[in-house]
Amino acid sequence: MFVAEIIGTVVATEKDPNLLGITLLIVQPLDEERLPKGSPIVAADTVGIGVGELGLCTGGREAAMALPKPFVPVDCAVVGIVDNLDVEREKIS
Amino acid sequence: MFVAEIIGTVVATEKDPNLLGITLLIVQPLDEERLPKGSPIVAADTVGIGVGELGLCTGGREAAMALPKPFVPVDCAVVGIVDNLDVEREKIS
Amino acid sequence: MFVAEIIGTVVATEKDPNLLGITLLIVQPLDEERLPKGSPIVAADTVGIGVGELGLCTGGREAAMALPKPFVPVDCAVVGIVDNLDVEREKIS
Amino acid sequence: MFVAEIIGTVVATEKDPNLLGITLLIVQPLDEERLPKGSPIVAADTVGIGVGELGLCTGGREAAMALPKPFVPVDCAVVGIVDNLDVEREKIS
Amino acid sequence: MFVAEIIGTVVATEKDPNLLGITLLIVQPLDEERLPKGSPIVAADTVGIGVGELGLCTGGREAAMALPKPFVPVDCAVVGIVDNLDVEREKIS
Repeated sequence: MFVAEIIGTVVATEKDPNLLGITLLIVQPLDEERLPKGSPIVAADTVGIGVGELGLCTGGREAAMALPKPFVPVDCAVVGIVDNLDVEREKIS
Repeated sequence: MFVAEIIGTVVATEKDPNLLGITLLIVQPLDEERLPKGSPIVAADTVGIGVGELGLCTGGREAAMALPKPFVPVDCAVVGIVDNLDVEREKIS
Repeated sequence: MFVAEIIGTVVATEKDPNLLGITLLIVQPLDEERLPKGSPIVAADTVGIGVGELGLCTGGREAAMALPKPFVPVDCAVVGIVDNLDVEREKIS
Repeated sequence: MFVAEIIGTVVATEKDPNLLGITLLIVQPLDEERLPKGSPIVAADTVGIGVGELGLCTGGREAAMALPKPFVPVDCAVVGIVDNLDVEREKIS
Repeated sequence: MFVAEIIGTVVATEKDPNLLGITLLIVQPLDEERLPKGSPIVAADTVGIGVGELGLCTGGREAAMALPKPFVPVDCAVVGIVDNLDVEREKIS
């Protein structure tokens, strides 16, 4: 799983029927210091998160487990709203 | 999930019987500014998208969920036609 | 699977109901010489590991197999506490 | 999915019983201009492809869907013989 | 799938009950010329391979298919002992 900032949405009118009603978010993965890591990807919202908030994201087959119907073509979902990243120990080196 | 531009097709006469009738697209993944990200891959079409259009792509086991028969050897599918990428918040740094 | 040092936790109050009660750890993947490899990710704890300890982590769909309920949106889990990395043969080149 | 040139085979006498009779190919992934992309990996043959031919490869859990028994430890398979890559639109750059 | 040299083992006393009795190997992925590719990872042994030997490794959900119990938190397994890599055609460029 990874933490990402929500930076926008994808608008797609024609799509798989199982995606109807699912908000497609553009999310920027962050590292443990909240700095961007790699480039943004698209994730399905499952918690009602908004732009500017930090989301906990799950990838792969597991992402769909957070949706009402688990057999949908979704490979990344926001499954939590992050309140805090608590790094107790400094990263090595 | 990711957004990609459709740039071509793959022609394969001999193939797994479960792939018969499925259009195999060459898709170029894009970033949130619609610039190419990495090199093109092959994805199954599920929405009737054409070359030059932007598709929403799903990878992994979930891709096959968008096909009529879900137990097929497909690991990437175009599951939506993207109308717009709405980046409300600027990417950090 | 990979070995990672536990460096912190993620606090997320609003989340998927299946994640309630699961500790979300920030883990730093390490190489065979215990040096950091890539940047930290988030993993579910299944063994009661603490910050500063080395965990054996499993990714993908298999991660959820270590949780009480296997159909949860988790794609990485700590499934063991590493006592030792026993590299008997030197890495080539 | 991706396109790869078949460049060799792996010989493994002792192996999982479910792999008996499956040809293990060394495949070099190619980009849309048929140039090598990354380094070769090992894929199971499901279409009777030969060295020097271009194969359509599927990764992950889906690869096993192309084999007679789907519950085998195979994570990449050649599922088609590529006749042509038809890039209609130039890659954005 | 990929070929890797077995370079050591991971010792983890406290672990998921489904991992008991499974040897956890440290494996160094190799390219087609038997040179190291990336850094070592951890894989479950299913064929009784030893340090210094070359193993055929499978990743993802498929890895667990080679274990006695398929619903275990393992995402990489050694599923064969490699006798030879037979590269018949030179790698392009």
